[in-house]
Amino acid sequence: MTLNPEKLLNDFETGSKRALARLISLIENNGKLADDVRDALYQKSGRAYRIGFTGPPGAGKSTLVNQITKAYRQQGKTVGIIAVDPTSPFTGGALLGDRVRMNDLTLDDGVFIRSMATRGSLGGLSTKAQEVADILDAFGKDIIIYETVGVGQSELDIVEAADTTVVVLVPESGDSVQAMKAGLMEIADIFVMNKADREGADRAIRELSAILHLREARDWQPPIVKCVAVKQEGINDLLTAIDRHYCYLQEHHLLEEKRRERFVQSVHSLVSTRLKNEFWDERARRILEQHIAGLDQRKTSPYRAAQQLIDHFKQSLAKQ
Amino acid sequence: MTLNPEKLLNDFETGSKRALARLISLIENNGKLADDVRDALYQKSGRAYRIGFTGPPGAGKSTLVNQITKAYRQQGKTVGIIAVDPTSPFTGGALLGDRVRMNDLTLDDGVFIRSMATRGSLGGLSTKAQEVADILDAFGKDIIIYETVGVGQSELDIVEAADTTVVVLVPESGDSVQAMKAGLMEIADIFVMNKADREGADRAIRELSAILHLREARDWQPPIVKCVAVKQEGINDLLTAIDRHYCYLQEHHLLEEKRRERFVQSVHSLVSTRLKNEFWDERARRILEQHIAGLDQRKTSPYRAAQQLIDHFKQSLAKQ
Repeated sequence: MTLNPEKLLNDFETGSKRALARLISLIENNGKLADDVRDALYQKSGRAYRIGFTGPPGAGKSTLVNQITKAYRQQGKTVGIIAVDPTSPFTGGALLGDRVRMNDLTLDDGVFIRSMATRGSLGGLSTKAQEVADILDAFGKDIIIYETVGVGQSELDIVEAADTTVVVLVPESGDSVQAMKAGLMEIADIFVMNKADREGADRAIRELSAILHLREARDWQPPIVKCVAVKQEGINDLLTAIDRHYCYLQEHHLLEEKRRERFVQSVHSLVSTRLKNEFWDERARRILEQHIAGLDQRKTSPYRAAQQLIDHFKQSLAKQ
Repeated sequence: MTLNPEKLLNDFETGSKRALARLISLIENNGKLADDVRDALYQKSGRAYRIGFTGPPGAGKSTLVNQITKAYRQQGKTVGIIAVDPTSPFTGGALLGDRVRMNDLTLDDGVFIRSMATRGSLGGLSTKAQEVADILDAFGKDIIIYETVGVGQSELDIVEAADTTVVVLVPESGDSVQAMKAGLMEIADIFVMNKADREGADRAIRELSAILHLREARDWQPPIVKCVAVKQEGINDLLTAIDRHYCYLQEHHLLEEKRRERFVQSVHSLVSTRLKNEFWDERARRILEQHIAGLDQRKTSPYRAAQQLIDHFKQSLAKQ
């Protein structure tokens, strides 16, 4: 199939879900999409509200995303879901029951779900997920939801990518996820204590609340919302909390700031990827090989090799 | 205090622990150390054996590192420890006990312990930790131990940095760390089932063993070592397992390969850091500012900004 970007863009603008899916695939397969197309798409974006859901594996993030999506649909809002969680049913990782429950969403024309792999795209995930979000935004989605498991780098990526970050915990998220929680603690705009009908829920909420009050006072104090996502309990409270956070961001002009930060982050990432591609030409790879060959005789060091490589790069650019 | 690199290097070579500590601090404070000093230090390295300990929070990694260090000391070997566990005010409770336990090590002149922060040095941790390891290596340490919590990026960093990667688990590392374990599974050269006197230990070992046997056969099949680190049980078995892995690497010429891979990784990282520093000059920052200013009118995109910035960079390099 040959690619006609102009036709694709036209179809996209008339609301073709197929064109949308095709454009996203082109992004995911690493930039076979010309800069002017990306440019045009980006300039249509900037209207959607972006919500990130994160938390330890098994906290019920997908079920919650499912419920909140239905709630937004009932308000007449369209929703795009980007699942970057290796354990999520959206990404095909979990139980059959979950997948069945998801089916009613995929049948809804106002919902677009996209799974993205995390492994093998280290560091690049945030940029790609954001570009996909920009496209969903340009397509006219009112709400964009990221779902990602809260470990390591991804929890930092999601803060950059989202306007509101919801951290989902369960009563039994105990000692073993303590360190994860420590990181999650810092990034939450809203906490959800999911499966709140389980034993220990109230104690877990008290503990969490106590930890939050130990911190310095902040302008925005993250609320803790009790949910039982599988029973649709607490979903409206969560919606209200998200709305309140949206109003807070709006009032303090923080939405524009978040968009600016995302823009800067994307530029940095693009620059670094492109420079790297230009840097490692045939001659640079040969220089590196020579240094590797000198390694056993202890006749080189990374510092010396890096300097020589940079000198070569400058010389070859000067010749262009 | 003024810095005299020559004197520092001389002191370092006569075995001054103070000079060692000072050099490491210079590395950590981002390269106030001239390339020729780094060069000289690197060329003295390449003799130490590097062991990484990782695993979920609370698995008892520090206690295990403590015990294994003592065991190596009894063999007359010197040890450098680099602890890259994330530090958080929320996990502060566990620290005091560990510190007390570590005290007998810090009194030993054959042991050097260094903690490194992970927050705020994203992506750069591996390079810095490796440079510190290279210095400890050049100083003459026989064994270098990394300790890091096994979540996200750090678990991938440690594989690069270490010759042997030990993954520490406990019987109760259950469902909630399943996703983490999935990542840890792939990187382990040796598994330790710590706190093996607890209920469920044998079942956990059987499960782990079953998972390992489901994978394709590999040249090196990771053993599972039972330990109770606080009671010093299983430490000798762990030493034997590490020795066996060392022999395996030796026989298959994989040690040189690991050193080469680390070298390449360091060069890549240095190049990328230095290019970035040169890239973001006064004019580049102004270009970015202009694009940010055009953001509200939707008159720009990250793609357009990145291209303009790269064009500027090439022009300014050509003029040099």
